Amino acid sequence: MTPDLITVLFGDPFAVMNTIGLIAFALVGSTKAIREEFDLFGITVVGLAMAFVGGVTRDLLVTRVPLALQSPIEIGLGLLGVAFAIGLRVVLASPDTHPITVVSDAVGLGAFATTGAIVATGAGVSAFGVVAVATINAVGGGAFADILLDRSPFILFDDFYASCAVLGGGAYWLASVAGFPGSTAAAVCAAVTVGTRLAAVAYGWELPTIQALGLAGR
Amino acid sequence: MTPDLITVLFGDPFAVMNTIGLIAFALVGSTKAIREEFDLFGITVVGLAMAFVGGVTRDLLVTRVPLALQSPIEIGLGLLGVAFAIGLRVVLASPDTHPITVVSDAVGLGAFATTGAIVATGAGVSAFGVVAVATINAVGGGAFADILLDRSPFILFDDFYASCAVLGGGAYWLASVAGFPGSTAAAVCAAVTVGTRLAAVAYGWELPTIQALGLAGR
Amino acid sequence: MTPDLITVLFGDPFAVMNTIGLIAFALVGSTKAIREEFDLFGITVVGLAMAFVGGVTRDLLVTRVPLALQSPIEIGLGLLGVAFAIGLRVVLASPDTHPITVVSDAVGLGAFATTGAIVATGAGVSAFGVVAVATINAVGGGAFADILLDRSPFILFDDFYASCAVLGGGAYWLASVAGFPGSTAAAVCAAVTVGTRLAAVAYGWELPTIQALGLAGR
Repeated sequence: MTPDLITVLFGDPFAVMNTIGLIAFALVGSTKAIREEFDLFGITVVGLAMAFVGGVTRDLLVTRVPLALQSPIEIGLGLLGVAFAIGLRVVLASPDTHPITVVSDAVGLGAFATTGAIVATGAGVSAFGVVAVATINAVGGGAFADILLDRSPFILFDDFYASCAVLGGGAYWLASVAGFPGSTAAAVCAAVTVGTRLAAVAYGWELPTIQALGLAGR
Repeated sequence: MTPDLITVLFGDPFAVMNTIGLIAFALVGSTKAIREEFDLFGITVVGLAMAFVGGVTRDLLVTRVPLALQSPIEIGLGLLGVAFAIGLRVVLASPDTHPITVVSDAVGLGAFATTGAIVATGAGVSAFGVVAVATINAVGGGAFADILLDRSPFILFDDFYASCAVLGGGAYWLASVAGFPGSTAAAVCAAVTVGTRLAAVAYGWELPTIQALGLAGR
Repeated sequence: MTPDLITVLFGDPFAVMNTIGLIAFALVGSTKAIREEFDLFGITVVGLAMAFVGGVTRDLLVTRVPLALQSPIEIGLGLLGVAFAIGLRVVLASPDTHPITVVSDAVGLGAFATTGAIVATGAGVSAFGVVAVATINAVGGGAFADILLDRSPFILFDDFYASCAVLGGGAYWLASVAGFPGSTAAAVCAAVTVGTRLAAVAYGWELPTIQALGLAGR
């Protein structure tokens, strides 16, 4: 079997997306911890938690030993993201609201929605299972980081965050069912997730409440 | 092997209890989110989380891929409960304190204590394991929903909530050890859990603190 | 193969450390719940959660059914720790700040870092995996107990708590790689974790923040 063009140009989709996601989410998690004035150990813990919790949960859901515990290079990628966050704070006063961090967060979301969809599809779960694992892989780390930062995981609800991963996971499943190769499905999933997330941030998208829809009983 | 009377009348105990539990807990979770004025996405997330987290945790504890990721109909049952919650809010001003919601919560607790006891018994764990898995299956969803709603999972402590599932799980184990068929044990578990829960709500049962017992050192 | 001196004197390292950890952490968890004036059910829940959550998470990470659900004696050890906590409150006004509780916490941390390192090494994970599983086994119960007590799991960050388990897990891995038998590695892990934890409490060790280091941009 000859690899398709996307794989030739960019490499194995899982490896590429996993590498991008680990660095991006470790950077975002550590940046949040720096803003809260956590010490160096706390910055490392929150960064690594944001990078690894989603993927570990994904692996547990398909009952395999988490990749993070088996691969010696995963931890290095996470620590690289932590170091980037510290470097960013050295040169910027408020890195947590800087475009670098906002884009890293969207890119990590898209990368991990894609790794989740790839692993779930490989495990042979249902269509809902693919979307659910993609979403949990994408948002699990950020939600856990929020809990560590003593905040409710509102990341799950705000600004089309988790819903972007839902759309990306659904796009992956549709592309797979339509017969496209895995690398194309991966590219579509990442593009849909990152695109909808950045659009939601740029335009402040919100879904209505029952009360706002005027449907609520009195 | 001929099925016993309960199975003939009501069907496979796991399937029946799982269906009841998913709809009831999705309704309760979504109702909580509606009260907090979450948007439609948040209402769906909290409802599905309350419906699925207990069963997913149960499946992980016996190391199998969660049923929710494999069965295509489970998600439909959860969404049905979410739709019921929205319908309830259209006709009622405060559905979260309405008897429909209070009874749904007790019924979901009993249904999931039963599915937990069935799966744990099938996995061959210890007596404590049966009670523990029944309790985690029953209360996991509600506790997780509370965390999503930015509340401590006090559901674990208040008003004989988790303890009703402990009693139900214990009743299932006793009935199994006494030689009753699984369907009878399931009926006993559900009845004990729902009965003690509704009685606790009706009569405001509470356990004492060490301080109240007058035992505390000074 | 003849057992080495440590095993002859103290028995199987996993069994010894597991027994010590379960009793010590159940005592500490229940003591925290007593201080918050939880009722008897809540005291039992928090004590057992602190004793069991770390080990259950460890077992899930290496994809085996949790030992706590299989062994009939584990729950008895946990309940023994709960009973000790109640007894301590009968004779002491503030057991949560008493040296017995502080030392029990350090001993439980060291015991569970060791059981985590043993199980992870047996599962053949990477060096980072050994340290990660040792740390999660050691701090998982306390962090979960904090969430149940409606507190952020600051236990993860304060006073060289989790970092002591990181050092202990690293020491276990180094001792294993250096060719020492498992019982020696276990003794080294427990000694490093308990020693650094007690020293950190005694001397109030803290790591600096980025801001305190004077590195932060403006």
